[in-house]
Amino acid sequence: MNRGYNFGAGPAMLPGELLLEVQSELLNWQGLGMSVMEVGHRTKEFTLLMKQAEFLLRSLLTIPDNYRVLFLGSAARQQFSMLPMNLLDNTKKGAYLVTGLWSAMALEEATRLKRAYCIASSANNDWHKVPSVEEYVYQADTAYLYYTPNETVNGVRCATAPICGDIPLIADMTSCLLTETINVSDYGLIFAGAQKNIANAGLTLVIIRDDLLASLPEQTLPKMLDYNTHVIHNSLYATPPVFNCYVAHKMFQWIERQGGVGALAQVNREKASRLYGFIDSTPAYESHVAVDSRSIVNVCFSLADESLEERFLAEAKDRGLLALQGHREVGGLRASLYNSMPIEGVNSLIEFMDDFSNRYPV
Amino acid sequence: MNRGYNFGAGPAMLPGELLLEVQSELLNWQGLGMSVMEVGHRTKEFTLLMKQAEFLLRSLLTIPDNYRVLFLGSAARQQFSMLPMNLLDNTKKGAYLVTGLWSAMALEEATRLKRAYCIASSANNDWHKVPSVEEYVYQADTAYLYYTPNETVNGVRCATAPICGDIPLIADMTSCLLTETINVSDYGLIFAGAQKNIANAGLTLVIIRDDLLASLPEQTLPKMLDYNTHVIHNSLYATPPVFNCYVAHKMFQWIERQGGVGALAQVNREKASRLYGFIDSTPAYESHVAVDSRSIVNVCFSLADESLEERFLAEAKDRGLLALQGHREVGGLRASLYNSMPIEGVNSLIEFMDDFSNRYPV
Repeated sequence: MNRGYNFGAGPAMLPGELLLEVQSELLNWQGLGMSVMEVGHRTKEFTLLMKQAEFLLRSLLTIPDNYRVLFLGSAARQQFSMLPMNLLDNTKKGAYLVTGLWSAMALEEATRLKRAYCIASSANNDWHKVPSVEEYVYQADTAYLYYTPNETVNGVRCATAPICGDIPLIADMTSCLLTETINVSDYGLIFAGAQKNIANAGLTLVIIRDDLLASLPEQTLPKMLDYNTHVIHNSLYATPPVFNCYVAHKMFQWIERQGGVGALAQVNREKASRLYGFIDSTPAYESHVAVDSRSIVNVCFSLADESLEERFLAEAKDRGLLALQGHREVGGLRASLYNSMPIEGVNSLIEFMDDFSNRYPV
Repeated sequence: MNRGYNFGAGPAMLPGELLLEVQSELLNWQGLGMSVMEVGHRTKEFTLLMKQAEFLLRSLLTIPDNYRVLFLGSAARQQFSMLPMNLLDNTKKGAYLVTGLWSAMALEEATRLKRAYCIASSANNDWHKVPSVEEYVYQADTAYLYYTPNETVNGVRCATAPICGDIPLIADMTSCLLTETINVSDYGLIFAGAQKNIANAGLTLVIIRDDLLASLPEQTLPKMLDYNTHVIHNSLYATPPVFNCYVAHKMFQWIERQGGVGALAQVNREKASRLYGFIDSTPAYESHVAVDSRSIVNVCFSLADESLEERFLAEAKDRGLLALQGHREVGGLRASLYNSMPIEGVNSLIEFMDDFSNRYPV
């Protein structure tokens, strides 16, 4: 196949065996005489696929019965407006834990549309360490606490879910859903764009607790931005992104074959540990993220001699180690180690980095 | 390949040669060592693909320079709210020509969110004949006239664009864009979901005139629902549906290879003409749509003896003539003859219908 190891932060690597399956049945799915891309979304075959996909996801994450699962078209970014529009009326505010670019943008959008505030931020430590719960400053009338457990741009992670009592916790898990075990009951709502660990770009999963749905304030929302619309119509209010749902279903099967989320989480921790360990012990490389805030799936680092960066990226690419440049807002280097990245990919990266630093010593 | 002829109304048939191309490069696109599904949306390769896709679309439809082209995630249905939210303030109303289910739903959503009214409707002739321009009843302060040139559910078509002078004309061309030649300059805004003639489901194209964009009233809209957001960010405000854009690009190339929209339009008229001709001359089949309102791409019909419908569908399926059932709201039968349906498919369908009616005479 001549495929490389793709360290891109998203759209991200997919398992080769999943892609081979997709490829083999691309022209004729389930013997129906058509591609899955051509299958009607209300056919019994696609209905069954959606049921199986939801069943598998529920099983992988142990989602309790009092949560609805939605498969929505559009990017995760649509949630930045859907959340405040659905959850806030004029009497309530959203609290935002700001730990990086994505949570900052979520707060910005909430503030444009409704009332929202920053409960704590890591801006004053250069986004390299997430605030502790002692730093949270709550305001009255807080309807929810929003956070981003993993921030892809600066490679920062909240190692534990914020504790917020009766206030519903909302999490943007776009980059970490299914990469570590979570307790869904800790959350009021979880959402995740597909393009890191679920499927190709164009699908967003939402997991929402029944009582949160039931207590939404009465508002006239655009139908497509109303969670209740999608709950009532089982994610089929509009034509869903059929192909992405099909890929997601295959991904859930693949995760199951790997031993489930717990097994992958263990591999993910090992991958991150090897790479951070190498970086910390090699003077040519630097990680600026506080040890207890380090992302497991987005390892951001830089070269001690930044003038070598272009050469580093070019040589890496030649060896099939792809998409290692950092986010355009912050620069530097970044290795995304989502579920689909095998440990061999990390070993190859470390081997190359070792070789590179020997050839270009600090 | 053992593929059938897929007459589904959407997600709809795609050209076999397009699917073969997608299949062949699914694991390694452009020698990048990764699938197109895994390619970052800000890479130079994907940026080039988007530029080429827009260039091809502009060429196929002769889109003037004073129109912007947007490739948006989400379903076309999101436009039902985006349109009134962007184009109407409290002083203006949207006028809706209601010719079937989709335009009725667009009006319903506009009325929920802003002020809108029905300028004319075909409800009183059972949705089988579109109103003539003499029937339009304009109200004061009309900001736009909205219509659906082709309604998929009842198989009805507006043969000519409504004449509305200086009032911007808005068209939901989800089921007909690229199936017939149009004069883009007649329109203020055109949108189309991808799953009929453009790509797989999960992408919506918007073509919007500059001066309409410039004259939008100041409003605080969700960023993702603001046309200006997507114009400013060249459709990359959020992660776009990368794979759908890639399929759309291939489709535009395919249309070009067929000789362009004009050549396909001629074939489409011929396909429709053959099928309507057969239906009209065969007592076992009925079309209820007025001749001058008949859709070219969705031929709705029924059996004189409706009790044979299930048998008809089962026998058709056995012969590889797929997805011929009508929309669940209206029942009956429907053959969708979008660009990807070759004339051989229509010939096979007619041959089968002839045989069926001989075996089960009225």
